[in-house]
Amino acid sequence: MNFFEKLENIQNKNNSFLCIGLDVDLEKIPPHLQNSDDPIFEFNQSIIDATKDLVCAYKPNLAFYEQYGIKGYQALIKTIKHIPENIPIIADAKRGDIGNTSKAYAKAIFEELCFDAVTVNPYLGHDSFVPFLNYKDKGVFILCLTSNEGAKDFQIPHHLYLRIAQSIRDWNMNNNCGLVVGATYPEQLKEIRNIAGDLTFLVPGIGKQGGDIRATIGYGMNNKKSGLIINASRSIIYASKEKNFAECARKEALKLNELINKAREEFGIL
Amino acid sequence: MNFFEKLENIQNKNNSFLCIGLDVDLEKIPPHLQNSDDPIFEFNQSIIDATKDLVCAYKPNLAFYEQYGIKGYQALIKTIKHIPENIPIIADAKRGDIGNTSKAYAKAIFEELCFDAVTVNPYLGHDSFVPFLNYKDKGVFILCLTSNEGAKDFQIPHHLYLRIAQSIRDWNMNNNCGLVVGATYPEQLKEIRNIAGDLTFLVPGIGKQGGDIRATIGYGMNNKKSGLIINASRSIIYASKEKNFAECARKEALKLNELINKAREEFGIL
Repeated sequence: MNFFEKLENIQNKNNSFLCIGLDVDLEKIPPHLQNSDDPIFEFNQSIIDATKDLVCAYKPNLAFYEQYGIKGYQALIKTIKHIPENIPIIADAKRGDIGNTSKAYAKAIFEELCFDAVTVNPYLGHDSFVPFLNYKDKGVFILCLTSNEGAKDFQIPHHLYLRIAQSIRDWNMNNNCGLVVGATYPEQLKEIRNIAGDLTFLVPGIGKQGGDIRATIGYGMNNKKSGLIINASRSIIYASKEKNFAECARKEALKLNELINKAREEFGIL
Repeated sequence: MNFFEKLENIQNKNNSFLCIGLDVDLEKIPPHLQNSDDPIFEFNQSIIDATKDLVCAYKPNLAFYEQYGIKGYQALIKTIKHIPENIPIIADAKRGDIGNTSKAYAKAIFEELCFDAVTVNPYLGHDSFVPFLNYKDKGVFILCLTSNEGAKDFQIPHHLYLRIAQSIRDWNMNNNCGLVVGATYPEQLKEIRNIAGDLTFLVPGIGKQGGDIRATIGYGMNNKKSGLIINASRSIIYASKEKNFAECARKEALKLNELINKAREEFGIL
């Protein structure tokens, strides 16, 4: 079963477009976990156990694990193993290098860490993606338009984000590509959907970053009324610093899911 | 002492612009090392010991270590510790993410792994660099024009590489920026030098990738007849698979250094 089949199955089963970003920062987790043997893993474990029936994917951003060295790496491995097998796991890695080197990154992420999908930076062009695309059962999300202010520096001028969307559509020979499209630029999200066909969008920028859910769903869904993975990280996982943090995370996830599904219904009928 | 001072000192001491890329692939190292306890580190150690008086920097590309999981990570840490303190070490990481996440990457690379410099991908714009630039004593090399074929996909159209060079010159508030400029596009390298002022270029693409040394030096040096770090990886470290591989690597490094210094003399006089 390839990544997008796995995704579709869980999206249907859990009735969810929601992806939770597991971006663990030891300064933000509840104080009572700080002195445990493996605070990163214990935090993730609780969040996963409390939300696994509400999500379509989990997305650990590798930066947050790398900052803690070997301990972070080991906690990441344990986290990946703890996620139920029917829920896809996306490595938010934003990697990309010349072909020879991208091959090593692809091996690290798909073989060593056993992720189901990865985010890739497009700056180095086609030959830098190929080693990722060659893993036909894995998903490859290429950054198109990111959710931050800096997207205006190089992505928006000369419509680079649109040229990238068009290129990825053309290069998607193994039907395993998706795009990263931030919720914070709804007008551009609409334009990207117009030229990207049915490609699935991984959408950051909801929650803490203030992206609009209704616009994201309305402009972002594809012709099959699908094609979206909506990510939230901080607004869910750091909903509380108290002992019941996982329960609070669940409440936030439920709330967000409800908003997403309300918009899906609204735009699904149109 | 900041990165660029450290670099200048060793460039003068070793009379060298040469950087060796420590991109270890277990399939390419000499067979007699394969069964040792830590083949990655033992390979690096021999290469470093044989070339440390010939280089101005070492540059491990993180992909090659990540592909071997925790063993790779541990070998990288040992390699960093083995490099003499007066030789700067550049993390070829090509990282870049939204500010909050770039901060974690910067911490991983500068604090956890203790690198002197890093390569950064510009796609996410200014706010994605800031956490790296805030480490004033560290060097930050932003990808401008990479050495691969894929550079033609998004970097060259609409002169994105030139807009990036201009932006980095403007954003270099802490005087700790450099640019990555491939040797395989000499005409563009010349254009970049024309607008980049004295910024130091980290130049891949010599050696295995076929970049022209004379053109790189002629077009790439700044007004101070400096501002270049010329990287070679595979052509040096895999010069031989025999027991004397380190000696062969030294010979290759000497040969390349001689070619570089001949061109420096030639263009230094003009």
